[in-house]
Amino acid sequence: MSVVVQNIPRADSAVIDTLGRAGVATVHEAQGRIGCLASYMRPIWRGARIAGSAVTISAPPGDNWMLHVAIEQLQPGDILVLSPTSPCDNGYFGDLLATSALARGCRGLIIDAGVRDVADLQEMGFPVWSKAISAQGTVKETLGSVNVPIVCAGQAVQAGDVIIADDDGVVVVPHAQAAAVAAKATERLDAEEAKRKRLAAGELGLDIYDMRARLAEKGLKYI
Amino acid sequence: MSVVVQNIPRADSAVIDTLGRAGVATVHEAQGRIGCLASYMRPIWRGARIAGSAVTISAPPGDNWMLHVAIEQLQPGDILVLSPTSPCDNGYFGDLLATSALARGCRGLIIDAGVRDVADLQEMGFPVWSKAISAQGTVKETLGSVNVPIVCAGQAVQAGDVIIADDDGVVVVPHAQAAAVAAKATERLDAEEAKRKRLAAGELGLDIYDMRARLAEKGLKYI
Amino acid sequence: MSVVVQNIPRADSAVIDTLGRAGVATVHEAQGRIGCLASYMRPIWRGARIAGSAVTISAPPGDNWMLHVAIEQLQPGDILVLSPTSPCDNGYFGDLLATSALARGCRGLIIDAGVRDVADLQEMGFPVWSKAISAQGTVKETLGSVNVPIVCAGQAVQAGDVIIADDDGVVVVPHAQAAAVAAKATERLDAEEAKRKRLAAGELGLDIYDMRARLAEKGLKYI
Amino acid sequence: MSVVVQNIPRADSAVIDTLGRAGVATVHEAQGRIGCLASYMRPIWRGARIAGSAVTISAPPGDNWMLHVAIEQLQPGDILVLSPTSPCDNGYFGDLLATSALARGCRGLIIDAGVRDVADLQEMGFPVWSKAISAQGTVKETLGSVNVPIVCAGQAVQAGDVIIADDDGVVVVPHAQAAAVAAKATERLDAEEAKRKRLAAGELGLDIYDMRARLAEKGLKYI
Amino acid sequence: MSVVVQNIPRADSAVIDTLGRAGVATVHEAQGRIGCLASYMRPIWRGARIAGSAVTISAPPGDNWMLHVAIEQLQPGDILVLSPTSPCDNGYFGDLLATSALARGCRGLIIDAGVRDVADLQEMGFPVWSKAISAQGTVKETLGSVNVPIVCAGQAVQAGDVIIADDDGVVVVPHAQAAAVAAKATERLDAEEAKRKRLAAGELGLDIYDMRARLAEKGLKYI
Amino acid sequence: MSVVVQNIPRADSAVIDTLGRAGVATVHEAQGRIGCLASYMRPIWRGARIAGSAVTISAPPGDNWMLHVAIEQLQPGDILVLSPTSPCDNGYFGDLLATSALARGCRGLIIDAGVRDVADLQEMGFPVWSKAISAQGTVKETLGSVNVPIVCAGQAVQAGDVIIADDDGVVVVPHAQAAAVAAKATERLDAEEAKRKRLAAGELGLDIYDMRARLAEKGLKYI
Repeated sequence: MSVVVQNIPRADSAVIDTLGRAGVATVHEAQGRIGCLASYMRPIWRGARIAGSAVTISAPPGDNWMLHVAIEQLQPGDILVLSPTSPCDNGYFGDLLATSALARGCRGLIIDAGVRDVADLQEMGFPVWSKAISAQGTVKETLGSVNVPIVCAGQAVQAGDVIIADDDGVVVVPHAQAAAVAAKATERLDAEEAKRKRLAAGELGLDIYDMRARLAEKGLKYI
Repeated sequence: MSVVVQNIPRADSAVIDTLGRAGVATVHEAQGRIGCLASYMRPIWRGARIAGSAVTISAPPGDNWMLHVAIEQLQPGDILVLSPTSPCDNGYFGDLLATSALARGCRGLIIDAGVRDVADLQEMGFPVWSKAISAQGTVKETLGSVNVPIVCAGQAVQAGDVIIADDDGVVVVPHAQAAAVAAKATERLDAEEAKRKRLAAGELGLDIYDMRARLAEKGLKYI
Repeated sequence: MSVVVQNIPRADSAVIDTLGRAGVATVHEAQGRIGCLASYMRPIWRGARIAGSAVTISAPPGDNWMLHVAIEQLQPGDILVLSPTSPCDNGYFGDLLATSALARGCRGLIIDAGVRDVADLQEMGFPVWSKAISAQGTVKETLGSVNVPIVCAGQAVQAGDVIIADDDGVVVVPHAQAAAVAAKATERLDAEEAKRKRLAAGELGLDIYDMRARLAEKGLKYI
Repeated sequence: MSVVVQNIPRADSAVIDTLGRAGVATVHEAQGRIGCLASYMRPIWRGARIAGSAVTISAPPGDNWMLHVAIEQLQPGDILVLSPTSPCDNGYFGDLLATSALARGCRGLIIDAGVRDVADLQEMGFPVWSKAISAQGTVKETLGSVNVPIVCAGQAVQAGDVIIADDDGVVVVPHAQAAAVAAKATERLDAEEAKRKRLAAGELGLDIYDMRARLAEKGLKYI
Repeated sequence: MSVVVQNIPRADSAVIDTLGRAGVATVHEAQGRIGCLASYMRPIWRGARIAGSAVTISAPPGDNWMLHVAIEQLQPGDILVLSPTSPCDNGYFGDLLATSALARGCRGLIIDAGVRDVADLQEMGFPVWSKAISAQGTVKETLGSVNVPIVCAGQAVQAGDVIIADDDGVVVVPHAQAAAVAAKATERLDAEEAKRKRLAAGELGLDIYDMRARLAEKGLKYI
Repeated sequence: MSVVVQNIPRADSAVIDTLGRAGVATVHEAQGRIGCLASYMRPIWRGARIAGSAVTISAPPGDNWMLHVAIEQLQPGDILVLSPTSPCDNGYFGDLLATSALARGCRGLIIDAGVRDVADLQEMGFPVWSKAISAQGTVKETLGSVNVPIVCAGQAVQAGDVIIADDDGVVVVPHAQAAAVAAKATERLDAEEAKRKRLAAGELGLDIYDMRARLAEKGLKYI
């Protein structure tokens, strides 16, 4: 059954912004080293860092019809997250859809498939993390669903979950845990800053983290 | 049997230029959504857009001898298209061959294998779309053929076909259809421009393309 | 058994610098077309070219403990070379470890696994060649070894071997052959310069390398 | 946080048996063409067909400790479903664990990683669907969780969901929908039987499914 | 444009049978070491060896409608050869379609995508060479073409070309060259038989093929 | 430089036989969980288990000349181990070479590339572990080396090292450690036998290996 869920929860915008500032690596650590999408999901251009609420799309292979349906569901600050129902590298999305998504306030696209018009998207400043770049077009024949739970690049994503994406990849934070994870991410950033200074001054992680005894106990030999 | 075909057809240069301006995604749509090479064919540097006539090379794995033979067959505006007879990621081509190809007016290289000296090639402005970047060298021991039909990254390519390549990938247009495809590509670009304005103004694809009735008929439910 | 070998040989710094200037493609040719790591080892940012002595790390999958141990073994000019004991794309290394490595004079990291904080690493100018970019973190539970022989991306590497890396990838030169290879690389660069000029002037490789007779003898037909 | 959920729902055993008899392809069609795990999940030996309730395992890469924990949670008829928290092909499971699992009434293992002792497993009649066969062993150092929601080979799996696996691969049916899907699968099998006879007698699908008019309407030309 | 070409050339049945008896490795050598499909094309069960005339299918990703159209075009002794227009591992074909194809005298299927019901297909003795085994179903929404030139697993195939497939994989012989290749394959088999006896008796290939002088000349050193 | 090393060390045949009986998984554990070749190395037919001394071959991509050279170096009980100098899936080896190798007492082939005539090889009982099955032939134009150190499927292999291969894959044991590893493997098999009985009787690994306290200490929660 193909459905469009119209009302989805969204995290508080301050929480989303905090997660975005923390970045993907810090956020995934803060929530217990989970939530990263597969490492093949790469930005089509480097330097973007976004965070927003997921509008999810389950689409048939080679069919981008549901993207048009999903764009109507976007609110400013949302991120489109598309997963095909079987592996596909077609270019589901290009500059026309990006123009439309931008007009609705969309912050970017996460797609476990392909994207095209990447030079235009970079010029427009529209960020995309994808499995492939491909000019190969799609049809509009078969329904999918919008705002249903999906699995995207190895992670379960629900509509309204917070997506954070930067040059390191993409991480998802469940809507209900967003505030708690944002708090832990902030603590983590503070703690890292102190360590960075000590490391820059030449102190060793072996000493800062007090590892020598435990390494010896496990049996490490210096020869 | 190893052969070099010396006389090949070439499309009209105005047609080639039109196809190049249209770009890969538009051209492949204009010819009926066909002709794209596999999405693993990526530019070694971003921002180039080329179109030209294919000088094809069928080469043994790990043997780049035929590239020297092919360069003699180049006319200004041509593009080298190399496919190994079995999968290989060796660096068949580097800055010396690029220097030679440029001296013959070559516009770029499409290679379903590897390339090297990529920093030099970028500095020279010589564009390459390849399966791999690899310093691993090749030998000159076994013959292949030049300007015979090949399959490159999943597409059949004949000598003289028009190759278009940009940041979205590579597409091939058969020589005989180049003019017709160029005409359709131009129409398509014009039509897109109007749609882009309406989408930028916030109109939805659902309305512009009149999709709502057909979606309902197929059974899409809003909940 | 997990060990840290503390005294390793290192090549002469002038030899290392010569190899670095020659670059990956030239060095691998100079040593007989061997030593290139697999082509999936890509720089996380373009434009770096480094050479240095390998400090090797054999690490369990998903466990970066040994990186802390290895950093203590670094001398200025060294390069960290990490291989997991089974395939893994986790982000073993990020900006904190890079800060620490830089403080010890490390020139870069070669890792047959993942790396993260790539935007920071690029800003710091710390070069990495890796199999993946991944935010997925690691644990510190299981020992590995430092400065033992490893296989990294298909090549055997011993501690103290010379690593050269640039946009074309990574090559390893055994410590004992570094000086001889550096000498051959220099000869090769000189010879190439002369050929580059002739090719740029429009001469063909077919003539410069005197290939026509041998091609005919092998049976190449022009039609 | 690492947890073991001890009470999980299980579908009715008659429903599970019906789904098992229907097989993977029919079940996935009956639930709307969804639920198939990625096609790289292959049986280590051909000819097994199983169905049972999922006992799920989220395990670190290269660490099989949680399998021991999970085996205690098995009830007769259950199937172990393991997903590593990042890609890993190590052999997490072999003949000793299979002996233990069989003693608890386990029907098989679905693992998005590697397995070993496959000759023994085949002799014991213990079926496994895995991403890899690998002798590479694992450690027991880091916790994971048992009976939490996981993503295995691209599909979300909850503890107690019904797993069906045969030579075509693996499909998951959510616990709550198992009875309804079993009913639809039975209908589907009946309908297929009639069609099979007509096709065997030489009738064409074009006629049985009344496709000719729709093909013509879409524009198919016979030439 | 979607078309069904109804009249295709077919090679003489005695020629086809000779090619089938020779097998894939011998045939590809006989035609100059060309024509092998990519090595990922594997039989779903071992032990079949077939040869026949190609009925080609170009199908959209995830859409098997054209298989029904193609089956009507089959003549006894034909082989279905399907290539999707972009990479797809869905199960396009199962036991119902095999029943229908068998009723038309079809000898097997070559598909650069997935197949399902493999246990049934093996029981029926219907041979398939495919990229994947997958239960994931397809739709019937979008047209493709039948008996047009396609590229399947890296090789160009025209309707009526001779396909030979066995445990080593799949090779294609153009219709026009089938008789000549069959003659050469027969010669080759005869020559191999004599060599096999000498090798079995302990003679070395180095001597039988008179390789020692040429190895020495190339510079091989025994140490 | 291309060389053939004619005198290589070989382990004691009783040691080799012990390692062969222990099998790949046990041997790799006995030597400290190292030495397994990559999991993509699969047997071309199931059920063989071999052990022997490595005769190594470094061969160019697509060139099997050195196999003829290596066969002369075989002594009864040896195993051929071939690695191409860059990735290649060509069929380097078929029934003629197997006939010759068998006549010299060769126990099998480990090849990080392709093999062909697999139906014949199975009928002859000649075991092969390979990356691919491919009919695509090779040339005899470029030298490689025999009995030099190579890296095969991710592991360093020296001539005379002991190779063990079975349905789980392939492991290498350095010549100098073969006797010690064989002794440990025997101990390990004995210990496993006792555990197997207890597990079969329904005892849990959690109790046999005394894991409960350590799991609790690490923080595992039962809920």
